[in-house]
Amino acid sequence: MAARADASGAAETAWSWLDGPPARADVAGMRRANLSLVVQLLQAAGGSTTRARLAAASGLTKATVSSLVNELVDRRLVHPGPVERGHVGRPGQRLGLASGSVAALGIEVNVDYVAGVVLDLDGTLRAERRVALDAADRGFEAALDAIVEQAQELVAEVDERAMHLAGLAVAVPGLVDTASGTVAFAPNLGWRDVPVAEVLRRRLGRRGLVVRVDNDANLSALAEHARGAVPGCPDMLYLTGEVGVGAGLIVGGRLMRGSQGFSGEVGHMPLDPLGHPCGCGRRGCWETVVGLAALLRAAADPDDPVRDPGLDLDTRLAEMSRRADAGDGRTLRALADIGRSLGIGASLLVNVLNPRALVLGGYFAVMAPYLMPSLRRELDERVVAPDAAGVEVLASTLGFSAASLGAAQLALDGVLADPTVIPVASTA
Amino acid sequence: MAARADASGAAETAWSWLDGPPARADVAGMRRANLSLVVQLLQAAGGSTTRARLAAASGLTKATVSSLVNELVDRRLVHPGPVERGHVGRPGQRLGLASGSVAALGIEVNVDYVAGVVLDLDGTLRAERRVALDAADRGFEAALDAIVEQAQELVAEVDERAMHLAGLAVAVPGLVDTASGTVAFAPNLGWRDVPVAEVLRRRLGRRGLVVRVDNDANLSALAEHARGAVPGCPDMLYLTGEVGVGAGLIVGGRLMRGSQGFSGEVGHMPLDPLGHPCGCGRRGCWETVVGLAALLRAAADPDDPVRDPGLDLDTRLAEMSRRADAGDGRTLRALADIGRSLGIGASLLVNVLNPRALVLGGYFAVMAPYLMPSLRRELDERVVAPDAAGVEVLASTLGFSAASLGAAQLALDGVLADPTVIPVASTA
Repeated sequence: MAARADASGAAETAWSWLDGPPARADVAGMRRANLSLVVQLLQAAGGSTTRARLAAASGLTKATVSSLVNELVDRRLVHPGPVERGHVGRPGQRLGLASGSVAALGIEVNVDYVAGVVLDLDGTLRAERRVALDAADRGFEAALDAIVEQAQELVAEVDERAMHLAGLAVAVPGLVDTASGTVAFAPNLGWRDVPVAEVLRRRLGRRGLVVRVDNDANLSALAEHARGAVPGCPDMLYLTGEVGVGAGLIVGGRLMRGSQGFSGEVGHMPLDPLGHPCGCGRRGCWETVVGLAALLRAAADPDDPVRDPGLDLDTRLAEMSRRADAGDGRTLRALADIGRSLGIGASLLVNVLNPRALVLGGYFAVMAPYLMPSLRRELDERVVAPDAAGVEVLASTLGFSAASLGAAQLALDGVLADPTVIPVASTA
Repeated sequence: MAARADASGAAETAWSWLDGPPARADVAGMRRANLSLVVQLLQAAGGSTTRARLAAASGLTKATVSSLVNELVDRRLVHPGPVERGHVGRPGQRLGLASGSVAALGIEVNVDYVAGVVLDLDGTLRAERRVALDAADRGFEAALDAIVEQAQELVAEVDERAMHLAGLAVAVPGLVDTASGTVAFAPNLGWRDVPVAEVLRRRLGRRGLVVRVDNDANLSALAEHARGAVPGCPDMLYLTGEVGVGAGLIVGGRLMRGSQGFSGEVGHMPLDPLGHPCGCGRRGCWETVVGLAALLRAAADPDDPVRDPGLDLDTRLAEMSRRADAGDGRTLRALADIGRSLGIGASLLVNVLNPRALVLGGYFAVMAPYLMPSLRRELDERVVAPDAAGVEVLASTLGFSAASLGAAQLALDGVLADPTVIPVASTA
């Protein structure tokens, strides 16, 4: 079974059976756990398998598996496919994760933009949107408006496709109380104690809609682990560079959130007591030398369009790449310096965590070709273990969609954990 | 079941049963897995329970449990106790983890000392030894001699008690290839590619003795988690201060070793580009301001006996504590400075990992009353999440025995994972 951040629930469920026969009140819970087990095994099998193989993998009887599959078909989560012939034994019908029936929404709010995606249960990207935003200047009400607007347009897309909306999750660059869906503190957005989940539930007016909120780097790591540069990599460090710098950690195949959900706060690592002043009031935080502002400051004058926060970040980064490709000295020097500073902090984190892969996200991914040489050099010099502890450095393949894809993935994981959240279809 | 670093094997084993009926060749493996499950459940129950409760907890039949228990009694791992009366139903015989029959050896080598313990299966400390050592001056051959000598004396103690020696593990302050038991690099010992396990196996001359080697901070974290300041705490950061500074991480109830076993290398976190020169060739590594040398340099002149590496470290630290208790200004200032520097690095790690508990080991534990105020202040100021992310800071209750206790624990965990490594007793 592919290591998935939330898939281990299946094994725990199976283990709990060994505590003895279930009490009467647990029967519904066991049915739910078995539905979850089957749909997760189906996903682990690459989205397609047979009842016989599900029975073998789950240890359930074929009759039980058939009954569970029928319910999953009724709930529009599983699609019965063609019958397989030409093999030894009875022909088996291929089952697939349903396509086009269940959708999840993922939205990311950041300092410069609000991005949103619609993801199908089988992983297909059904819609994607992004709008530029200067949240820091406009206050949190305006940013919330932009999130709600984005969500409304994507919900309309889901409705148009006659898909069932399974849930919505929002990625935020800050500390999130995931239990309540409240952003405790997002310094670069200027948010403190903003009840994002509650606001969205109220303003979207969808009865019973599950809305989750989580840290953007956590959700990006989830996306990279599920479908990005190193799918299934059990020990991964994801670093994202935007106005702030964040980290998401996959440890032993699972998202490592820490005891209160606040892990991965790497932006304010104090690397230089005499360094640049930071918004946090101290000096020399990592963010001050590798955040987007550091790159822009070093690479361009204040009136240069690449420093205009009103322009889409993609456009500005494309222009920086163009200059680097053209051999512009100032741009190349700025990127080499950022790569070096990135390498100093990354080495520290590799020494602490010893990940198998280091995935660069946000603007680090866009600029990776120019950051990589000096980043690699610092890793080789500073990581205590031989050969930089074998860490593989890769650029994200999901780019600025990572966090919104991870958010949608989190919403889908809710369905995988409890398929009964999707009602039985009223029409066949 | 109490979360234990290596106990989760039981759940994985149970899960594997669901893959279908076992092949004939797997029967011995299943018996082994069931023996392991029963002994781990017994341990999780605090070392004492009944057959009926083991059956309920394991999902195995009472007949199977009885057969497994009989074998565990024959292997001297389980002790049949008195019959419990006075409850409803049939009286049950209490079973206990055996005491006085199976022992594991844990040895720690460090720059200043070699420490060793003998641990009983039920967790009782049967013997403890420590000798001062100035390994850096004497080369690795002499340090290996000291380890072998320590092991020989402890093995003699085990033999004298007529206990079965289950295994031996060695804790080393450095990077360890745990698969081969080779120390890849231990800078403060001056070791590189030293095959510690192989040397010990050869020189102890015990046929079939399992010898493991692991990083000292990892093993200390294991001991703190099993029996120290915060037993069972699922998310813990252990920091040990000696000549070097090391970290051990418990994440989700398990030791987090990283992808190659090299996690927790915190000594060379680069916190000040203009800081003190470090043995690694760079400046401002965390070790240069919180390692033992930093404390000694700040608190005493070169000819002060507390700086004499020939004296036992406990004695020197006791003298420093005495001076601090007496209000000596230089000592107090030195400790407050160390506490502040400790807090700067600890805050960084708390931001990255968000542990529930931070346990101070090594000399940090001895000096904790004087380090804690300035350490706490830095945490409160620098941890991004509110209330320092709720981290509880504690001094190790295991002191300088943590790593050797953790090593013995690791050796015992080998018995818990496969009880058949202990032969059936030839005499009843």
